[in-house]
Amino acid sequence: MKNLIPLFLALNCAMTVRAAIHTETVEYQQGDTTLEGFVAYDDAVKGKRPGVLVVHQWMGLTDYEKHRAEMLAQLGFVAFCADIYGKDVRPKNAAAAGGQAGKYKSNRQLLRARVNAGLDALRQQPLVDTNRIAAIGYCFGGTTVLELARSGADVKGVVSFHGGLDAPNPDDGKNIKCRVLVCHGADDPFSSPQDIAALENEMRKGGVDWQLIKYGGAVHSFTQPMAGNDNSKGAAYNEKADKRSWAAMQEFFAEIFK
Amino acid sequence: MKNLIPLFLALNCAMTVRAAIHTETVEYQQGDTTLEGFVAYDDAVKGKRPGVLVVHQWMGLTDYEKHRAEMLAQLGFVAFCADIYGKDVRPKNAAAAGGQAGKYKSNRQLLRARVNAGLDALRQQPLVDTNRIAAIGYCFGGTTVLELARSGADVKGVVSFHGGLDAPNPDDGKNIKCRVLVCHGADDPFSSPQDIAALENEMRKGGVDWQLIKYGGAVHSFTQPMAGNDNSKGAAYNEKADKRSWAAMQEFFAEIFK
Repeated sequence: MKNLIPLFLALNCAMTVRAAIHTETVEYQQGDTTLEGFVAYDDAVKGKRPGVLVVHQWMGLTDYEKHRAEMLAQLGFVAFCADIYGKDVRPKNAAAAGGQAGKYKSNRQLLRARVNAGLDALRQQPLVDTNRIAAIGYCFGGTTVLELARSGADVKGVVSFHGGLDAPNPDDGKNIKCRVLVCHGADDPFSSPQDIAALENEMRKGGVDWQLIKYGGAVHSFTQPMAGNDNSKGAAYNEKADKRSWAAMQEFFAEIFK
Repeated sequence: MKNLIPLFLALNCAMTVRAAIHTETVEYQQGDTTLEGFVAYDDAVKGKRPGVLVVHQWMGLTDYEKHRAEMLAQLGFVAFCADIYGKDVRPKNAAAAGGQAGKYKSNRQLLRARVNAGLDALRQQPLVDTNRIAAIGYCFGGTTVLELARSGADVKGVVSFHGGLDAPNPDDGKNIKCRVLVCHGADDPFSSPQDIAALENEMRKGGVDWQLIKYGGAVHSFTQPMAGNDNSKGAAYNEKADKRSWAAMQEFFAEIFK
């Protein structure tokens, strides 16, 4: 029996390696702009599987989104982090981040082009079942996945986590073909009740299949541990809201990917 | 082999009977008033388990709530349907239902006494783990479980399904000790945006752990197939919102009962 232990350990180790999440950076283009995304999937799983586009917060594509992609890969999806800003455009501070995010928020056509380029790059991943695709986004990325939906993208659903919520063109809801889940901090100071009501009305008018979850006690950035825990700053981590919204996303995926 | 088939069938049949949901009516008192509740549990399961109080809509305790109790029993809970109105007080039409519901909505102390009597009756069920109790309610019952929470009841959580939402005493949120989940039709005409905002503010001010889910395209009574499918009436069944809210309740229970 003793002799079997090293063999068991070796096998176990090999299995662990086999079950590791494969990740790599992926360059792709939108027009003349080079973008640098990131893909993650479990290479121990065989066959095609649903794909999830992950759109970054205002700081650009960081380790935070890459970690979310790895979490999605562990759930069995091919996850692809889009790069909206462009290769090497990684803001170093809030002012630079605000400049970048503002550029795209004020040019929704460009934002749509960039996020759709990411969607195309996800579709080209050989393990993706192109009939089962969703998109999620955090903060600026939440706004972006709503814009992806408004572009009429052929995806099954989008999930916004503490996205900036508004309705710049109230008729755009009519273009939305997918289901929408909005996970929002009830004390998030960055979306006014009027803007949230405008988004709801846009979706209502457009006949969209939508849901909005408000998490009491949560402010902006509630999924981001690096946001600290001081709600008075308007952005802070909230473990309960983080876990609940991740569970709500999984329930949503179970519904749209079945 | 052939001879084994009748035995297998007999065993299978016996197992089916054993796994059937046990139900019975239960009389209990609040003050001098006799109430008639209903309990459901799976008697094939051994040992104590979480208990769920179910509070009825404005028509009083009907087969609808009893069916929900059986569904909860199938999920492994002891479910107890409270009777708020009193034994044999079962409104025959909307006018009578409005009269009964109005009586309790305008006398919140009496409503609290009645729902707490139901909670006590649930606690007395021998299979209930009294440390793990929640309450759910539909329509009038949704309002009622929020009032149960405001009474300071020692339960883990309450879930309102298309409850009438308001905040008659904005300071009452401070008494709430349990978690609150509100499942609401985004097009429900029976709760104004102002009343919903008041409830949110009550819970915010009280430091309550709360969540509110809005289901796009759903009106009042979205869990009730007998409400028909004409949204223009203000009350209609919505299969998606029904299934999603039931799943959200289960996720909530998994969290509060763990």
